[in-house]
Amino acid sequence: MTALSHSDPRLLACPDRSGYTDPDVLDRELRAFFARRWMLVGRGAEIPTPGDFVTADVAGESVIVIRQTDGSVRAMLNICRHRGARILLEQRGSCPRMMRCPYHSWSYGLDGGLLGAPNMRDSVGPEQEHLGLQQVCAVEAHGCLWVTLQGDPDDFDASVTGQLRERLGDDAALGRWELERLVSGHQIRYDVAANWKLIVENFMECYHCSSIHPELVAAIPEFRGGVASQALQVGHGSALSDEAAGFTVDGRAGLPTLPELTETEQRAYYAITLFPNSFVNLFDDHVVLHRFVPLAPGRTEVVCDWLFAPEALSDGPDIGPTVELFDRVNRQDFEACERCQLGAQSRVYAHDNVLVPAEHHLRRLHDELAAALAGD
Amino acid sequence: MTALSHSDPRLLACPDRSGYTDPDVLDRELRAFFARRWMLVGRGAEIPTPGDFVTADVAGESVIVIRQTDGSVRAMLNICRHRGARILLEQRGSCPRMMRCPYHSWSYGLDGGLLGAPNMRDSVGPEQEHLGLQQVCAVEAHGCLWVTLQGDPDDFDASVTGQLRERLGDDAALGRWELERLVSGHQIRYDVAANWKLIVENFMECYHCSSIHPELVAAIPEFRGGVASQALQVGHGSALSDEAAGFTVDGRAGLPTLPELTETEQRAYYAITLFPNSFVNLFDDHVVLHRFVPLAPGRTEVVCDWLFAPEALSDGPDIGPTVELFDRVNRQDFEACERCQLGAQSRVYAHDNVLVPAEHHLRRLHDELAAALAGD
Amino acid sequence: MTALSHSDPRLLACPDRSGYTDPDVLDRELRAFFARRWMLVGRGAEIPTPGDFVTADVAGESVIVIRQTDGSVRAMLNICRHRGARILLEQRGSCPRMMRCPYHSWSYGLDGGLLGAPNMRDSVGPEQEHLGLQQVCAVEAHGCLWVTLQGDPDDFDASVTGQLRERLGDDAALGRWELERLVSGHQIRYDVAANWKLIVENFMECYHCSSIHPELVAAIPEFRGGVASQALQVGHGSALSDEAAGFTVDGRAGLPTLPELTETEQRAYYAITLFPNSFVNLFDDHVVLHRFVPLAPGRTEVVCDWLFAPEALSDGPDIGPTVELFDRVNRQDFEACERCQLGAQSRVYAHDNVLVPAEHHLRRLHDELAAALAGD
Repeated sequence: MTALSHSDPRLLACPDRSGYTDPDVLDRELRAFFARRWMLVGRGAEIPTPGDFVTADVAGESVIVIRQTDGSVRAMLNICRHRGARILLEQRGSCPRMMRCPYHSWSYGLDGGLLGAPNMRDSVGPEQEHLGLQQVCAVEAHGCLWVTLQGDPDDFDASVTGQLRERLGDDAALGRWELERLVSGHQIRYDVAANWKLIVENFMECYHCSSIHPELVAAIPEFRGGVASQALQVGHGSALSDEAAGFTVDGRAGLPTLPELTETEQRAYYAITLFPNSFVNLFDDHVVLHRFVPLAPGRTEVVCDWLFAPEALSDGPDIGPTVELFDRVNRQDFEACERCQLGAQSRVYAHDNVLVPAEHHLRRLHDELAAALAGD
Repeated sequence: MTALSHSDPRLLACPDRSGYTDPDVLDRELRAFFARRWMLVGRGAEIPTPGDFVTADVAGESVIVIRQTDGSVRAMLNICRHRGARILLEQRGSCPRMMRCPYHSWSYGLDGGLLGAPNMRDSVGPEQEHLGLQQVCAVEAHGCLWVTLQGDPDDFDASVTGQLRERLGDDAALGRWELERLVSGHQIRYDVAANWKLIVENFMECYHCSSIHPELVAAIPEFRGGVASQALQVGHGSALSDEAAGFTVDGRAGLPTLPELTETEQRAYYAITLFPNSFVNLFDDHVVLHRFVPLAPGRTEVVCDWLFAPEALSDGPDIGPTVELFDRVNRQDFEACERCQLGAQSRVYAHDNVLVPAEHHLRRLHDELAAALAGD
Repeated sequence: MTALSHSDPRLLACPDRSGYTDPDVLDRELRAFFARRWMLVGRGAEIPTPGDFVTADVAGESVIVIRQTDGSVRAMLNICRHRGARILLEQRGSCPRMMRCPYHSWSYGLDGGLLGAPNMRDSVGPEQEHLGLQQVCAVEAHGCLWVTLQGDPDDFDASVTGQLRERLGDDAALGRWELERLVSGHQIRYDVAANWKLIVENFMECYHCSSIHPELVAAIPEFRGGVASQALQVGHGSALSDEAAGFTVDGRAGLPTLPELTETEQRAYYAITLFPNSFVNLFDDHVVLHRFVPLAPGRTEVVCDWLFAPEALSDGPDIGPTVELFDRVNRQDFEACERCQLGAQSRVYAHDNVLVPAEHHLRRLHDELAAALAGD
């Protein structure tokens, strides 16, 4: 079979595809990459009141993130210290006074400390103070909940906010979207039969946009050129078509523009890849927030929220045309990722896939990942 | 993360949970523990007539147990000696004269010997005597069918009856339940998403009773204290509530009491764990018999029979309230086991679960198992 | 357990059954046996016009076989050279002018060469000539499409036609069935829970015929004797019953006889095993063609076509009784194979299964396979 000559510097090699189908590779990625970074697991607005909680799959672990009485958040492993039962099965709920393991009724405070157990004195005694739930580092920032399994975590600002700053140019820009006060108007969970790296690669490039996203390139004509806005200069947003009134599936007007945005920002779209597990999409009247959970080498869950200003949602506007634009984009993308997963399973294909110039920046994912795995 | 101090002797460590999710561990357990012990596979009353058979999964093997013309039972592998086909697919049935492999019509007598084959003389000839089904040791005792894959099996009385004797104090007590003449009035199969060891641990302790078994502790108030009757002195039975007329879901009267029981036994419940794969529950008017089959590290089938005296069943009494009591207990237990299985899958949890004093006797399971695996 | 004495030369040992359940064994078989031989993947008549294609699973690889403008066929891996997406998802279809990967719209000519890509000059440039689809060897012969992943393939005539010649005695006999002009009147896909070797072994012998194929032995009384026609002398066909008018499920007449057949051939059935993945069944008025795809150690897809002369199909005859005969045979066979797969999973069975004289020729499969694996 013909070997590809890589003499042309415009064609970079894609990484070996065995890493897209091998359970051992995913295990190492979970341990060395996902478990050590700050992972997006939800929105702070999902847990407004003390005792409100979400549970999330963080690098294969079930983690509780729960609002404290002082308004802060804490996170802990969702495993009872007594006999190891999963304590909370729901994705979201409220435990106003305590968390109680249903198996033997051991109960824990909102901070995870052991409060009580049947026959407390006889069964646990002075060991009570050592039998709290295992703590996990958590931060609430940008209106979101972030968790890391790393005991001595990376600096959050340098790591997460740094990626946003690097893309937008300065913190003030991000501030104008007021992420901390937006609320989710709609959420969709997608079950994608593809490796998580295919989903990140797909999000990072726009060379495919004109092929599979007719609605998106109608809204944002620049995308016909195939260059992703995040591959261009820092702070570049991709302009809304002159023929469209808003970022909607059919170009009709969306919701009122967020009040702080500059004039340019009111007509532009900003896509941001946030390693390890989320994507941020800034529009003038809403934000689309993706987070994903690798479930198996060939299976990834993607949770997508459409965020709006609370006042814009208050009179029950029709957000359908707004949601449908990115819902269609998501489905188009995930179908393409699933086709690549099918190709990745080949054992005889040379896998000398190429990255064209408009895709060169995809190497960043693989460089970050290789660095993480090297340190494992 | 906080390490548990084990300085307090009241807290014993639970075993490592990787043994609850690892297929290689289950393989070793099947080979070294289940295959070498006497396994409960059914009731003798299921196969009253010569040629009646049951098939059972014994440590991963399909085994036929079949009634002989002299009234005894024999067991053999359910695999044709010709080309290896499974001969009998049903869980229960009757082959009055012979067992016939449907593939090439090789036929075997009730004792497993090869009776015939198409073109017998040309195809098999004098080898006929060597081509019987592979024999497996079987015993009928206590009204039950027991099988072991061990060629040179443990003494049945010392091994199985010994466990019953050790619990009840003497053979006479067991005799008063007349197990050999009871018949099954109801059977339920449960498919449980948990490792078999979680199911045994759960059955052995009652520290969870007040948390998840409201009907059971209403019937047996002693269980509110959290101590399993089998963890107390030999021969101890747990008394029926003064407010209940029988061991039923709502306290109404059950069936007539078994005639030989002592006055104490007429108002008590006796739970017995029978290693490796069964539980016996003695009540005044019925016996609940569990047996389980490990199907995968995280999946176990439990078969539960409600046994009654034949004369008590003869006029079609309402056994519903009796069956419903332990059916509810089973479902409550298995849901708890499934929560523990979810916790066992964690890779970062320290797994320093603790056994409180009311659970210390659970170590017996792990000691027995460790001894079996050490001899592998 | 009793060991089989193999002193009797009439009883040959079956191969070890671990090779029927082990994924690593299947991997080696795919690589060393299936990938290196000529595999039947379809009929030429399925792709009459340039641009018509079929896709097939060839030793785990998705392969496109596509009709060229000059009437020949070519085959290539179904993986885009850009980012590795599967290009065609359908089992059959038409790409009259080009094949286009839907992900980024790279397009390929019918010969697999890269025709175009968005921003062609900037993204690919002079590398275009190296970026065609990976070619796979293909041949159209006997009206069928054949593919091999071997870069330097076996001589087709010696390998495939040789097996047909060896069975029928000469090329002229095969020619009288005019395979190249027959068309499929019916196709059924069977999903069989058995290892592919069980399916081949089953097809090769007829010792089971009187046990499970009542309709077949009614049509062909010779099969009651248990000897497969292909195990007898070269060129032997098995005669239709004097009481049957045709090879149909109930003995009624079938379609008009193929015009070139000899008088003997007009009343006979010829079964041919074609290594590695197909079976040919010649009747007087139709041909039944099986091909199979190993999907897992315990799962195989079998595709079965009933082929007829086009003129015999032209007036819409009732082919139901003809199709039903072999459809029943297939279902009876595959159920038997599934029973053997259940037996193969045993870990304690001695697996000293025996081949009786009427099955000795099954060793040929294992000899061929062992030779292929030895060369791996």
